Amino acid sequence: MTTAQAARPSLTVYKIGGGILDHAAELPRFLDLLARQPGLKLLVHGGGKGASALLRERGHEPQMLHGRRITDAATLEVVTMFYAGKTNKQLVAALQARGLNAMGLSGADADVLRGTRRPPAPVDYGFVGDLTAAGVGAARLHGFLEAGLLPVLCPLIHDGHGQLLNTNADTIAAAVAIALAAFYAVTLHYCFEKNGVLRDVNDEQSVIATINPFIYAELRRQEIINAGMLPKLDNAFAALAQGVERVIIGHALNVGTEIHTELCPS
Amino acid sequence: MTTAQAARPSLTVYKIGGGILDHAAELPRFLDLLARQPGLKLLVHGGGKGASALLRERGHEPQMLHGRRITDAATLEVVTMFYAGKTNKQLVAALQARGLNAMGLSGADADVLRGTRRPPAPVDYGFVGDLTAAGVGAARLHGFLEAGLLPVLCPLIHDGHGQLLNTNADTIAAAVAIALAAFYAVTLHYCFEKNGVLRDVNDEQSVIATINPFIYAELRRQEIINAGMLPKLDNAFAALAQGVERVIIGHALNVGTEIHTELCPS
Repeated sequence: MTTAQAARPSLTVYKIGGGILDHAAELPRFLDLLARQPGLKLLVHGGGKGASALLRERGHEPQMLHGRRITDAATLEVVTMFYAGKTNKQLVAALQARGLNAMGLSGADADVLRGTRRPPAPVDYGFVGDLTAAGVGAARLHGFLEAGLLPVLCPLIHDGHGQLLNTNADTIAAAVAIALAAFYAVTLHYCFEKNGVLRDVNDEQSVIATINPFIYAELRRQEIINAGMLPKLDNAFAALAQGVERVIIGHALNVGTEIHTELCPS
Repeated sequence: MTTAQAARPSLTVYKIGGGILDHAAELPRFLDLLARQPGLKLLVHGGGKGASALLRERGHEPQMLHGRRITDAATLEVVTMFYAGKTNKQLVAALQARGLNAMGLSGADADVLRGTRRPPAPVDYGFVGDLTAAGVGAARLHGFLEAGLLPVLCPLIHDGHGQLLNTNADTIAAAVAIALAAFYAVTLHYCFEKNGVLRDVNDEQSVIATINPFIYAELRRQEIINAGMLPKLDNAFAALAQGVERVIIGHALNVGTEIHTELCPS
């Protein structure tokens, strides 16, 4: 770490998904803890089960492939209502009640997340977006943070031509963390319902405290890490390789598993 | 007008409702015209018929009283999804495609519109809010405008204690226009489907070009103005009395009826 980097203020990018959003008791607990964390914060939220329930209510069966939602026009309408409307605004109002000046944004708002529709081959996911750090309006988000705001990003980006695109929240969190590493010493914290990356998915006490590339390769070889965790870990290593200082995967705001690029973390 | 006032930059607060939002051909035309208007802009949008349709789809019959929606918890959920999700984000994405750096906000976002739940007597409207200019985060909105953003406000405010409240968009537009008169020479433009305030509601050519308090009293006495227009005109005179320079009621961006406080407008 250079002196210049050490002098940068700290920012934590929190990502929450269904494991917190869908549990009536977990969400207020998470928000209470978040309000007590010092330093600058940014929150990225996923969808949760509500969008699927609303889709079914409207007569559409949700279609998933490789853990990703296939997003036709009817699905895009529902996720736009659910993610940018209900989930985002309820989070923002609840954070305001806790004294945090939250501001909810989709990627179209202030052009903060601009990407492209995923190519239709080999699989046509429909209105699904791909985002890289280059598509993040980092200077704009920096301005909001410096103005005392806590950005709350929902998992929708736009293509700049009027099209909203459903986008994986883990990917958004990683891209935002990388882009904001130009301004801050960034910690990326994937908060979910488990205590961390587990050796035994049925044993909450089996948290793997540290994962570095060597350990990761070994865990994959032994097929200890379940498939759902692999994209998170790939995102984590990509973020560390591109300037993010620290990546944590764990239950809400407790450090569960810390991801390192060093083979022997200090 | 003092010299200090004359030196203030101009801002136009546009309000659009169902007459534009619900018509597939009107909306892009309005957005195209908006993109060509010079000067600083802020957009307030209402709901339109879609929220009622979604309510009915979910088995709730919309309940209106004196033109206001009675908002129980199920209705609040639907209008939050519809106004803050679908309508707001589609507007923002469409404005971005036209080169305007729009940013959609509910009242909870960045605490820009804070009000109170309407007292339950004599009529309990449910989760319906009242807002005055004092509840508008004018300095924050000013900061967004100066930063090159076009705020797009949906008709939801918050109470600061975690509760979102469904609020009349005309009232929001007037409160925002009044609050921003501290920074700008503000024009408040109520855009709707008629050419202006009409002498004969069936004759689009019967636009009343100017309304001042004397003319207004006369029009009311003769019962020429229909009931739905009265709150708009009351809001208009209230705005003019509190520092807004100009109020226009008319079709999209053409000047239809101009409201004056002077008995003999220059």
